[in-house]
Amino acid sequence: MSLGSLITLTTDFGAGSGYPAQMKGVLLSAVPEARIVDLSHEVPHFDVLAGALLLEACLPWFPREAIHVAVVDPGVGTERRALCVVDGEGRRLVGPDNGIFTAFLGAGARPYALSDRGVLPAPRSATFHGRDLFAPAAVFLARGGAPERLGPAVLDPVRLDWPEPTAGPGAIEGEVLAADPFGNLLTSIRACHLGPAGPAGVRRATVDGRSARWVKTFGEGATGELLAMLGSGGRVEIAVREGSAAAALGGFRGKRVRLDLR
Amino acid sequence: MSLGSLITLTTDFGAGSGYPAQMKGVLLSAVPEARIVDLSHEVPHFDVLAGALLLEACLPWFPREAIHVAVVDPGVGTERRALCVVDGEGRRLVGPDNGIFTAFLGAGARPYALSDRGVLPAPRSATFHGRDLFAPAAVFLARGGAPERLGPAVLDPVRLDWPEPTAGPGAIEGEVLAADPFGNLLTSIRACHLGPAGPAGVRRATVDGRSARWVKTFGEGATGELLAMLGSGGRVEIAVREGSAAAALGGFRGKRVRLDLR
Amino acid sequence: MSLGSLITLTTDFGAGSGYPAQMKGVLLSAVPEARIVDLSHEVPHFDVLAGALLLEACLPWFPREAIHVAVVDPGVGTERRALCVVDGEGRRLVGPDNGIFTAFLGAGARPYALSDRGVLPAPRSATFHGRDLFAPAAVFLARGGAPERLGPAVLDPVRLDWPEPTAGPGAIEGEVLAADPFGNLLTSIRACHLGPAGPAGVRRATVDGRSARWVKTFGEGATGELLAMLGSGGRVEIAVREGSAAAALGGFRGKRVRLDLR
Repeated sequence: MSLGSLITLTTDFGAGSGYPAQMKGVLLSAVPEARIVDLSHEVPHFDVLAGALLLEACLPWFPREAIHVAVVDPGVGTERRALCVVDGEGRRLVGPDNGIFTAFLGAGARPYALSDRGVLPAPRSATFHGRDLFAPAAVFLARGGAPERLGPAVLDPVRLDWPEPTAGPGAIEGEVLAADPFGNLLTSIRACHLGPAGPAGVRRATVDGRSARWVKTFGEGATGELLAMLGSGGRVEIAVREGSAAAALGGFRGKRVRLDLR
Repeated sequence: MSLGSLITLTTDFGAGSGYPAQMKGVLLSAVPEARIVDLSHEVPHFDVLAGALLLEACLPWFPREAIHVAVVDPGVGTERRALCVVDGEGRRLVGPDNGIFTAFLGAGARPYALSDRGVLPAPRSATFHGRDLFAPAAVFLARGGAPERLGPAVLDPVRLDWPEPTAGPGAIEGEVLAADPFGNLLTSIRACHLGPAGPAGVRRATVDGRSARWVKTFGEGATGELLAMLGSGGRVEIAVREGSAAAALGGFRGKRVRLDLR
Repeated sequence: MSLGSLITLTTDFGAGSGYPAQMKGVLLSAVPEARIVDLSHEVPHFDVLAGALLLEACLPWFPREAIHVAVVDPGVGTERRALCVVDGEGRRLVGPDNGIFTAFLGAGARPYALSDRGVLPAPRSATFHGRDLFAPAAVFLARGGAPERLGPAVLDPVRLDWPEPTAGPGAIEGEVLAADPFGNLLTSIRACHLGPAGPAGVRRATVDGRSARWVKTFGEGATGELLAMLGSGGRVEIAVREGSAAAALGGFRGKRVRLDLR
């Protein structure tokens, strides 16, 4: 017996809602040897950007041959398309065409619209495509089905407007995109924006007009101090040691972040 | 090596409490090849009805040969019986005799009282039967033990008083039973109550005296609009698009729901 | 194919944060056949004592050959050491040297500092050792690597000051250490402190100056009554039947508990 396909699940359903469990029932009924990993079922409801950032942070750590099902889907039951994306590195992703796969739609990506009723069931419900459409598509892939058989190629998959940071003379300006459960804030500024000097080239950080000390790690801060650093996921993060930056700033999304460079 | 037994867990313990983990330790110590799936550990504390509805929604999606352990058990340590139920379709369920298995006690069901100390350990604690009685019973079943060896047949298993809807001339009246994490409301009205025309035969829905638009899916509603539909689990649901019906109605359990038919 | 290593995870990251998922990605990329069990990802943030109590409660239920990764780590990125502990019964634990393994540092325990860059990668980030140091150490162990190759033996691992109860004439005094999601309270008084008569020798319990009825199980109490008992994890617990003792007492940690003996 060989190891079964690795399938990850990302939703905003709530781990205890019973909805992820129904998806797992569908997967394990058809692919009993599948190994299923929950990335998160606690994406904030309907928050496609938060789901997209979570996928961006997690997928690089999984084997390329894993199949990723993501369902943050406020448009379920409307005319929004459903996708299987094969990204430039060969990863397979399944979910709604609403931008949740933005990070994986770069060079070499091949998106297909899930529509071929020869290989997919007609969705049993209009409200639960996670169970009735996306899980069956993952089953098809896990059994070795070719992505291009799921439906026609899509030329204009939906992409989120990632707010790109702007670089002025000696400074980078971006914004806060999301918060983690600690209240650490994820920003739009990534490692690649820091320039050749990398994190060492940052002289000063400012968040929402307040000064944040630029550090390598939480541990350098005093308890309660506002900190900024290049985080473990490759984005600049704002944090408070043993505290919540989201609470300290009284909110988060869209807060302005400025890095002054040496 | 063949695939191990599939065992699902449903509790009100909280996924992070350590209690489900102890159950998994017992299961994996005795059946290392078991595949364990969490249905939910977030059933509202002591809410047997919510647990029963969760099982009703999830179990049809799992293979028939899976073993289901459910522990929402306010009576633990009292004289309440413990059960293994083999339902009419051959599913095996293990948990307290408090009505949590109501949906699986129909025609052909065979409930047994967990009592045979020849095949079960004496519970080590009076407070944690999930770990000390139900998990060992699941181990017994997973190793191929026959349900009828667990104890004597039970003739009067506890059933919940499912509030059945009433059908008047051209209308069905029911009530709200539970809410999911989105604030969508599950009602006592099931697909089978809608009559031969099915969902298409519904003309108007009223919830707690307020009008709700009858739709096929969330996507048809305006943001914030109160909606009613036949949900993905086969029950009529009340929802608000990208919002919470529970919040909109200021509470939920027992709220009256009326469907007027064409 | 033989069954893969059993690896448990305990963190304060939040199950839905994406951080446990990244750890699982690292583990499954290197050890595809690993079986991963979440003990908890909901340890209160930075609460090392709560994490230590959770490990104490859960680990005895797992096979001895399991590998346990625990990351409640307010000191990440500082000079705090990282450990692999082989406890007196052969269990292998991996995590920060901050006391989280206190319960497993008794007779026969062998702690090693994670430092050998020949067998471990240099941590890729200064903030996420769960993914970049502890998961790789677990991979090393799961592939059969010897713990002593991870780094030098540690003679003075950090231990928590478990507040030991004091025994006076005919009475034991201790304190509340932690709460579970039901609001049941875990105290510093363990079964071994109760003396030869065990639970039967307790005459009266007092918590924070209030009387609590000494029972064998929740079920003996009236709804809302304050109860004390020897809990399923071997510690004296304070509970309210179908209610929260934490709420009833208006807080918990450090509350004084007194047992009068017969």
